[in-house]
Amino acid sequence: MDNHSIEQCKKAKLAIQDTLDVVGGKWKFVLISIMQDGPKGFNELIREAGISPKILSKELQEMELNGLVFREEQKTKPITVHYSLTPYSRTLDKVLNALEEWGTTHRKKVISGK
Amino acid sequence: MDNHSIEQCKKAKLAIQDTLDVVGGKWKFVLISIMQDGPKGFNELIREAGISPKILSKELQEMELNGLVFREEQKTKPITVHYSLTPYSRTLDKVLNALEEWGTTHRKKVISGK
Repeated sequence: MDNHSIEQCKKAKLAIQDTLDVVGGKWKFVLISIMQDGPKGFNELIREAGISPKILSKELQEMELNGLVFREEQKTKPITVHYSLTPYSRTLDKVLNALEEWGTTHRKKVISGK
Repeated sequence: MDNHSIEQCKKAKLAIQDTLDVVGGKWKFVLISIMQDGPKGFNELIREAGISPKILSKELQEMELNGLVFREEQKTKPITVHYSLTPYSRTLDKVLNALEEWGTTHRKKVISGK
């Protein structure tokens, strides 16, 4: 971040908090990165993320509420549900790219022990 | 993120998880954005972030361990401690900028009700 006045700094802090209110926590970015493959069933998400059903259910509900995830019931018997990313979720691409890039570099740093 | 092969997708997921292991959760990005002002005392951080002392203490320890925060005892009586960002923490600038930008845009979207 560039040098900020106190006012700009407050705004930056608030904006960061806003983002973390919506996509903070351990799972949402991971779930988004999984759904970038295409629509996923509930059990697929459990398996691929290594998340518990209870927490997954809560995370998906919050993401649906914030317009990031679309829940679609398939006309199968028994009913199955697919979760996919909304077009709005694509606005997070820059954040996801930055997280991915940093994680890759940080892992190299940790492995090299520097 | 661009279209990924399954292998690339796994790598991306892992890298995102790596990043969130280090700076995930509700507070670390907020604390970093506060310390970008300059070194801060423990109580200043409590006040500016609205965080509890117990959680702040834990967050700072983890950030120190990951080379993001530098803890410096001041030669005052009683001893006071200042926390500041390390040069390594600057590698997170791109992530912070992306989080700030998304939060600003999302807030506008929420306010406009679209």
